[in-house]
Amino acid sequence: MMKRVEVDGARLLQSLADFAAIGATPAGGVNRQALSVEDRAARRLLTERALARGFSVFQDDAANLFIRREGRDPGLAPVLIGSHLDSQPTGGRFDGALGTLSAFEVLEALAEADAGTLRAIEVVAFTNEEGSRYAPGCMGSMDFAGASAIGAWRSVVAPDGARLEDELAATLAALPQAAMRPARPPPFAFVELHIEQGPILEREVVPIGVVTGVQGTRWLEVSFTGEAAHAGTTPREFRKDALAAAADAIAFLQATVMPGDAQARLTVGRLVVEPGSINVIPSHATFTVDVRHPDHQALAGLEADVRAACARAAETWGCTLSIDRRLDMAPGTFDPAIVDVIEKACRRRGIASRRMTSGAFHDALFVSRAAPSAMIFVPCRNGISHNEAEFVTDDHVILGASVLLDVVRELAGRFAAA
Amino acid sequence: MMKRVEVDGARLLQSLADFAAIGATPAGGVNRQALSVEDRAARRLLTERALARGFSVFQDDAANLFIRREGRDPGLAPVLIGSHLDSQPTGGRFDGALGTLSAFEVLEALAEADAGTLRAIEVVAFTNEEGSRYAPGCMGSMDFAGASAIGAWRSVVAPDGARLEDELAATLAALPQAAMRPARPPPFAFVELHIEQGPILEREVVPIGVVTGVQGTRWLEVSFTGEAAHAGTTPREFRKDALAAAADAIAFLQATVMPGDAQARLTVGRLVVEPGSINVIPSHATFTVDVRHPDHQALAGLEADVRAACARAAETWGCTLSIDRRLDMAPGTFDPAIVDVIEKACRRRGIASRRMTSGAFHDALFVSRAAPSAMIFVPCRNGISHNEAEFVTDDHVILGASVLLDVVRELAGRFAAA
Repeated sequence: MMKRVEVDGARLLQSLADFAAIGATPAGGVNRQALSVEDRAARRLLTERALARGFSVFQDDAANLFIRREGRDPGLAPVLIGSHLDSQPTGGRFDGALGTLSAFEVLEALAEADAGTLRAIEVVAFTNEEGSRYAPGCMGSMDFAGASAIGAWRSVVAPDGARLEDELAATLAALPQAAMRPARPPPFAFVELHIEQGPILEREVVPIGVVTGVQGTRWLEVSFTGEAAHAGTTPREFRKDALAAAADAIAFLQATVMPGDAQARLTVGRLVVEPGSINVIPSHATFTVDVRHPDHQALAGLEADVRAACARAAETWGCTLSIDRRLDMAPGTFDPAIVDVIEKACRRRGIASRRMTSGAFHDALFVSRAAPSAMIFVPCRNGISHNEAEFVTDDHVILGASVLLDVVRELAGRFAAA
Repeated sequence: MMKRVEVDGARLLQSLADFAAIGATPAGGVNRQALSVEDRAARRLLTERALARGFSVFQDDAANLFIRREGRDPGLAPVLIGSHLDSQPTGGRFDGALGTLSAFEVLEALAEADAGTLRAIEVVAFTNEEGSRYAPGCMGSMDFAGASAIGAWRSVVAPDGARLEDELAATLAALPQAAMRPARPPPFAFVELHIEQGPILEREVVPIGVVTGVQGTRWLEVSFTGEAAHAGTTPREFRKDALAAAADAIAFLQATVMPGDAQARLTVGRLVVEPGSINVIPSHATFTVDVRHPDHQALAGLEADVRAACARAAETWGCTLSIDRRLDMAPGTFDPAIVDVIEKACRRRGIASRRMTSGAFHDALFVSRAAPSAMIFVPCRNGISHNEAEFVTDDHVILGASVLLDVVRELAGRFAAA
């Protein structure tokens, strides 16, 4: 019989509070954007705690931060757990921090119980997941997974004027305790605990989401061009109304796409009308469409639906149409074996869980293209995230970390140390 | 048998060219905004030509400019004809100028033929019809008709920083040749020649529109409030999408209102979405609705249609709704007797005409509330107005002025002078 190992809930909650103080906003959120001085302070605090525990600390070229607790066989690929420490400018206390600090709590709990693993376990804090200061997001995990080297973005400039290259160098230099480590083979597995950032778990009163994949996303920019004309003197048959065409297409898509497929998501978040005068028929209407689906074929079908609806609307209103694809992020499928391990861990603890797809991007999406990966979700209040009001109950924090601990021990191969 | 009197087409076309040079834009339009130095130059030129002919010139407190050719009985109310000399910032050569300069040509033609009238004829150039430099438009005709005194707007400031009060005083002072004249009883009749500013006459190849009235207009501002949420993580049943609600309402109204009533006009010219991020469900969508109809009851029905469609859309998308009425301009009905006179004048000349409603506001709308009024329309190319590309053929200019001449002689009571 294995030794019973549990996370220390009080310690984890205190840790979340300690990190929430770094970049704390008056409204109770955090502003700890990627590669900022606040981000560096958070990295420093985690490193100090790791070194105090006797764990090794490494950085790579992308300033991804790794904390390693050795396994019985150092030659085996490690189990990687973690998330990110950067936040949105008016972000919450849990997005990223929950996954990173729970992962660290797992290491601490194992160390305290003197519980060994066959494989090493590494905690990771990926660089710039949010993308708010330097677009795109998930730079660190893309670099880690070999999708794109961090150097590709070295000239990106933040709204505050700082170049990525310079802030990256300063961040690396601020942590001399962490040895630089070259790129290594992919980990044996990656597991990321995260808040759902959506409303489903809370509504269904299910404390754990077992994430089977990440929706694919496409971004389209649709532009109708008609003809500006006088609102009073122009009969219907002379109107080439770009906004009427846009409204026609949007209304049709909203009335059909999501009601027709519960897994589909379609959002028009931005719409600009020109000339924008109360008594002038609009000559231009440009809007964005964000479509998502966990299935690649279905996602392509959504884009086709958008194109067809817009073409019909353009015809109805005598407008010309152009559609540009701005982003095409393929769906990610998580590793079925790890998904099983997570589900069984929940069952053993008697915790209700449900399988679900992630609607948001995460570092795990990119890591999953290089190594077997999966995610664990916990509910957040009202589904609110990227917001200072983001909130997770203490119980859900501790449940999530406990499941992560069990999953990690299973993946890393548990045994009684020494 | 009355003496045959005709306008001098060449002189009228030259006059249009002379005035188009005042504030001429490189693209062939005019920028002669109300009470500007260009507007003053145009008033000065017209005054000089009037005085050279021996006509009297007057101004009132609103800087409306009057040119009077005396009738046999100076005690009778005069027949008033004219329009305005101010333009949009990138306006055309005909909007306003055609009506004012054709009216002056009528006076010149009568003077040259030594043709007398029972009633005096006055040409008017109303102040600030366009409203582009000082809102609202039609200030001069509103003051003239007693709807609202010009003093009510004395503190209005132009985008260039100039107060209306100061520019009005400077404009009056720039024309010392024009005697100040206090408010007088309403004229016997008012007739305004104008370009259609719409596409109907051109399409139907009818050179004269006999205008029976002006559509009423209501402006509504509609605001949907939903809830911002993540585009990827929020299923349909959790969405309170303000733009989806707006598109639903707009698409429904565009698909039903104008197809259902050929006299109705509905335009959504402005729409603003917040927060306006590609991957965030919009929390706010605010748009304007411009509805017009020549019938007062039908116009009220259009507003009710808008309110009902928006209420249904708000319900569908779980949004709250507010609707404010920003303008309520009642339809204007022109004088049936004058309409008859215009129609008969066309018939006598063998010119095709059709009755129509004006879709745009005009000074005649306001004057019609104080005195019997009507309008004569001529076609403009592609229905384009408020645009430097505004164009009227020479033939249509001369036809319009000729009909105006006949109508004025009929209304003023023709007789052979001396």
